[in-house]
Amino acid sequence: MDRTRNELIGEPVSEADLEHALEEDCPCKEGMFLKASRRQILRGGLMTAAAVSALLPRRTLAADDDAVGSWTRPGQVAKSDYGSRSQFEKVVREATPNAQAALTPLQSLWGIITPSGLHYERHHNGVPTINPAQHRLLIHGMVDRPMKYSVADLKRFPSVSRTIFIECSGNSGGTARSTAPKTAQAAHGLTSTSEWTGVRVSTLMSEVGVKDGAAWVLAEGADGALLSRSVPIDKIMDDAFLAYAQNGEAIRPENGYPLRLILPGWEGNINIKWLRRLKVGDKPFMTREETSKYTDLITLTGKARQFSWVMEAKSVITFPSGDVQLPGKGFYEITGIAWSGRAPIERVEITTDGGKTWALASLQEPILPKAHVRFRYPWFWDGRETIIESRATDQTGYVQPTKAFLTAHEGVGPTYHYNGIQSWKISGDGSVSNVLND
Amino acid sequence: MDRTRNELIGEPVSEADLEHALEEDCPCKEGMFLKASRRQILRGGLMTAAAVSALLPRRTLAADDDAVGSWTRPGQVAKSDYGSRSQFEKVVREATPNAQAALTPLQSLWGIITPSGLHYERHHNGVPTINPAQHRLLIHGMVDRPMKYSVADLKRFPSVSRTIFIECSGNSGGTARSTAPKTAQAAHGLTSTSEWTGVRVSTLMSEVGVKDGAAWVLAEGADGALLSRSVPIDKIMDDAFLAYAQNGEAIRPENGYPLRLILPGWEGNINIKWLRRLKVGDKPFMTREETSKYTDLITLTGKARQFSWVMEAKSVITFPSGDVQLPGKGFYEITGIAWSGRAPIERVEITTDGGKTWALASLQEPILPKAHVRFRYPWFWDGRETIIESRATDQTGYVQPTKAFLTAHEGVGPTYHYNGIQSWKISGDGSVSNVLND
Repeated sequence: MDRTRNELIGEPVSEADLEHALEEDCPCKEGMFLKASRRQILRGGLMTAAAVSALLPRRTLAADDDAVGSWTRPGQVAKSDYGSRSQFEKVVREATPNAQAALTPLQSLWGIITPSGLHYERHHNGVPTINPAQHRLLIHGMVDRPMKYSVADLKRFPSVSRTIFIECSGNSGGTARSTAPKTAQAAHGLTSTSEWTGVRVSTLMSEVGVKDGAAWVLAEGADGALLSRSVPIDKIMDDAFLAYAQNGEAIRPENGYPLRLILPGWEGNINIKWLRRLKVGDKPFMTREETSKYTDLITLTGKARQFSWVMEAKSVITFPSGDVQLPGKGFYEITGIAWSGRAPIERVEITTDGGKTWALASLQEPILPKAHVRFRYPWFWDGRETIIESRATDQTGYVQPTKAFLTAHEGVGPTYHYNGIQSWKISGDGSVSNVLND
Repeated sequence: MDRTRNELIGEPVSEADLEHALEEDCPCKEGMFLKASRRQILRGGLMTAAAVSALLPRRTLAADDDAVGSWTRPGQVAKSDYGSRSQFEKVVREATPNAQAALTPLQSLWGIITPSGLHYERHHNGVPTINPAQHRLLIHGMVDRPMKYSVADLKRFPSVSRTIFIECSGNSGGTARSTAPKTAQAAHGLTSTSEWTGVRVSTLMSEVGVKDGAAWVLAEGADGALLSRSVPIDKIMDDAFLAYAQNGEAIRPENGYPLRLILPGWEGNINIKWLRRLKVGDKPFMTREETSKYTDLITLTGKARQFSWVMEAKSVITFPSGDVQLPGKGFYEITGIAWSGRAPIERVEITTDGGKTWALASLQEPILPKAHVRFRYPWFWDGRETIIESRATDQTGYVQPTKAFLTAHEGVGPTYHYNGIQSWKISGDGSVSNVLND
């Protein structure tokens, strides 16, 4: 970084810091265990934690606790069976008022993997408690050999792992078109990325034998809502898979335990959770969830888009984002995520002057298709009020549109598939807020 | 798959299954809510969960509960702030007898990401409880401007994310050279992969200004052991970074919260956890952890390797692996992980006849350098006793050696950096065990 332009980050080291640190350069010679005999050190394995603790404070805690840390004593051994977060970490999913969804705290995350405990959730009638030993997947309809599979059966087949984003089609919809949601989480938190593992649906289809004329597959969940959707068989045979694992371990209950249909790049609800049935047919099944819901009313024309499955290119700056307070002018890394359900992200552009000029952000490698892509952009904030935005383009050439463009072409609806550019205003006092910037 | 050779996986669907399923094809027309009036359906939002539950059993639960699942009723809404595993998932880290380490259950994981709760842990004096608001990193020694950074300061700098394996240099050492450990976890569980995010150490070094003649950097942890190691400055300036995030969220306490030095491809202990100090010098600091420990005694010569940081190419089959019981002859996917601290994995070969013939496994894309790579190999087991093995080769051309080769060249030691080929025996009854196969 250019130090001439950069406000200093961090603090110069004081004499006290240095004096203290130098004492400890080589614990093997005369450092931290100075008050213990050489014999005690060599028999360290026999010393109890309490004995060590008694020795440490005299040598390792200097007057300046800030520098050295009052934690520098033997801690408790972690509960080692299944770890959990530090007691100091308070980031949580934020439930929607109807408790049918909870949003991922995008502004608090790093990289591209969403920790499973913070993957967004959306359910239509609660989260069922399923014993995987009792769960079965039925495949029937226009097939030669209708079959029933246990989860253990499905794990016998060749497996595939892919890092995939899942985004609720309602993400950023409704109030997110306004400036009401204060944070990236509240406005756009219904999208998350995990490494999913399972069996290709095409593998199972070749087991059961698909009959001529088959064109659609009904997928049905085992939740109270029996959520079901129709999927064209081309998608099923292309890249659909049945996931039993998420980020290395079993899928979490709220994300479909023990079995979820993954349709890479398609809206969340059709990635059927708690999957219990696939029925092959020759036409769409016209389920409740594709008639009363999940069609996109275009208010300007009064017509509705149906089967609008693909989530188009989109991005959001997660830092700095709404409700953040910048400490002052100086260097900041603007960062965020971009994704497209259609093709890999080609580029993300950043404006720090409300749209007058744009520059390329760097993209975290590898750029995975149909996964969140982390972008980063170095920025020196001069302390003056401005608006920052990100704009994603995917490899089809599709460019993330502005709110103004979408409103002009679609009206104030639809609630679903909204992917307009998000604008964050940096005020002179460093506060960041959600604004409209057409 | 070739159905003529394959034992059938799954069960044919019964008439009862089908009859039941067909009733529910289209919930929007006359399916699951048949007993509810149309008006009730349209006002679904006003129906209580209890009311829906009362309706469901009559239509959706058939006599054959195995097929339909007795869970098909509205479940409880998940606690939505921070999710946890299903109550049916029991996979855990396994602590070593001295409680100084806990091993990742490799045989139960999928893909390449290790869930943070199951990342292996190893500590030399417990896990300190650190308040990140009080933690500081000191950088001093042969620098122009000694500096002190808070975690918040470090997050101001340009960031980098990389998916990296960390392996304890003692992994697979000692008893793993024998057949004593029964499982992949017990034998090889001190390796895990996470997506780490942080700031490049080179960025900080350019902030503090490294003096001419600087050649080594002391890295010191804030744990009770003040674990410290010397790192050549070339590695520091190449790809070292200070991670504050793991798999999207803050690093877990047992893995260094709030700050860990990441040295991609190097043995675990030098990836200093709870990092509190970097001191730049002109020679190695010869700390306790690089003199009394973490040198590799070659018993054949009586000499010890020092500064043997890089973890060489290695692999292990995680399924089928020790203590698994195969249900019978038929199709199985052999799978496992391979990794190298030196270069990307070039290939993994599999033998299913005890080493007589080898064939290429497929590697999960993308193949990330210095990360676990998932390999997969389709296998038809004919039911006869055999031995299966995997052998990794990295892009330097280095081939994972056999146990016999290592013993001939190094003797029964060293305990550290053992990467011999693992052999699993499949017995005629389908049981799998750890065997020697020179």
